[in-house]
Formats: sequence, structure tokens, C-alpha cells
Amino acid sequence: MHLKKQREWPQYVVIVGCGRLGSLLAGLLSEVGSSVVIIDVNESAFELLSAEFSGFRIVGDAVEIEVLRAAKTDKADCLLATTEEDNVNLMVAQVARKLFNVPKVLARVFDPRREKVYREFDIETVSPTNLMAQAFVTSIEKKQGDKSCA
Amino acid sequence: MHLKKQREWPQYVVIVGCGRLGSLLAGLLSEVGSSVVIIDVNESAFELLSAEFSGFRIVGDAVEIEVLRAAKTDKADCLLATTEEDNVNLMVAQVARKLFNVPKVLARVFDPRREKVYREFDIETVSPTNLMAQAFVTSIEKKQGDKSCA
Repeated sequence: MHLKKQREWPQYVVIVGCGRLGSLLAGLLSEVGSSVVIIDVNESAFELLSAEFSGFRIVGDAVEIEVLRAAKTDKADCLLATTEEDNVNLMVAQVARKLFNVPKVLARVFDPRREKVYREFDIETVSPTNLMAQAFVTSIEKKQGDKSCA
Repeated sequence: MHLKKQREWPQYVVIVGCGRLGSLLAGLLSEVGSSVVIIDVNESAFELLSAEFSGFRIVGDAVEIEVLRAAKTDKADCLLATTEEDNVNLMVAQVARKLFNVPKVLARVFDPRREKVYREFDIETVSPTNLMAQAFVTSIEKKQGDKSCA
């Protein structure tokens, strides 16, 4: 997976959580020239970062405002909350949006029922459950009917 | 999320794992008339099933061939391995494909590096990490460049 360099990508991105998803995004955005700061509570998580990653790493709990401040979140065009914890993602995303005025805030939400709460706070959410269900369904449908998907 | 009834869906589907993904798929496929059998090691997992679910529940470890046999996997048009464990999904998918000759086998794989192994066994895989990264990237790109995505 690679991003297209000719597209316009955010200049400064803060990523919270350096798991599989966070580390993948950090590498992809570094490759297209974004400045990336990635935050994780565990220093060992940074081992997942690819060779393409050229940004900064911060060890700390992003739920603490000081940690977000150290990441210069007020300068960020975009914050991506990618931890495994819906609660952490919700809290960090709210602080980024309301306190640091980050224009674009995206959060991973495992529990689709919580997506409504996020939207009220002007936070975009991505749900792995819904995405996976959609991918499974698309694949089943193709095989059976051999029709293109709506 | 709903499936279109006028499309052709598999008649008989075995779903392994009744977590958020498995239970969601079970409900969606029941709604469009598929016969669904869902298997989970924990009986309490079936609480996630929606009111739309009209199929059978089997409590058992699908890694055991007898459990797949009890689910009449040999009659299935399709098996979906949706547990949280890549190893379980890989094993169940292989047995379904090779021993029970299920024509369509799909497995969730968290570790994208393992996808190659699955493909060698004629098993389709869906990786939440890649799907999520794609969804995040599409959203960032839209906002910044306001262009449609390739």
C-alpha cells in the first residue's frame, strides 16, 4: 500500500497509538512528505514503525493534555486516534478538536453504537466492524452473482 | 446496514465466531434469506445476535472437525472465519476448503503478513488493518484536496 504523491496530504499529523494501524499510517504519510508525530504509552510499540517513518516519537499517555501539547497538537492539520481503546480515542479526539482546534480529527471506534457520540463532537469515526462486514459481504456477493457492487 | 434482497446470496452459510463481526454478518445474511449456522466456543457470545437472526447456534470449538461436521459444513456454500485469532481462522478455513470442499471460504486476518499463506490454500482474506488504513487515508485526502479517490 502506497499513497499517491501528487495528491494533497496534510502537512502536520499527530497519530495517537502505534499499533498495526497507527504505525502503518505513520509510514504511509511520512512517505508522501507529511510531518508526523506518533504517540504511544509503550516505547516498544515504536518497533512496528517502518523504515519509511521519518517523524517524531513521543512516549506518553495522550489522554494527558501535556502529552498532546508536547506533540504540538495545536499546530496539527489532522489528528488520528488509532488506539485499541474506544474511550481513549474518544477522549483524545475531543480534546484535539475542542481545546487544540485541530481541523480534522478521525477516530477508530470498535463499538458502532458509540459513533453517534463522536459525531456530536464533530469527530469522524471509522468502525472496523462495519468495514469488515462490508468487505465480507462484497466478496460473497461477487462470487455468487458475479455482479458489480453498488 | 442492510443487504439488498434482489441480489443472489449464498443459501447455506457457516460462520465461525460470534463476536461483533460474526454476529453482524449472521443477522444481515438471515435477513436476506440465507440459512446460517453460527459457531462459538462461548455460549454467552450468542447474546450479540440481533433479532433478525433466524439460524442455528452451535457451542463448540470449530478447530475440532466434529464441530464443523455438526454444522453440516459439507453442505455449506460459504464459510466465514471471523474469530479474533488468526490461527483459528487459518485452521478452520483450511479444513473447510480441503476437507469439506466449501466453495467459498473467507477469513479475517489481523496480521497482513499471513495473507500469503491463506492465498496458497485458496482462502480469501480480509485484513482489518489494511481496510482501516485505507478508510483513514481516503478521509484525510478528501478533506485536504477535495478530490474523488482513485
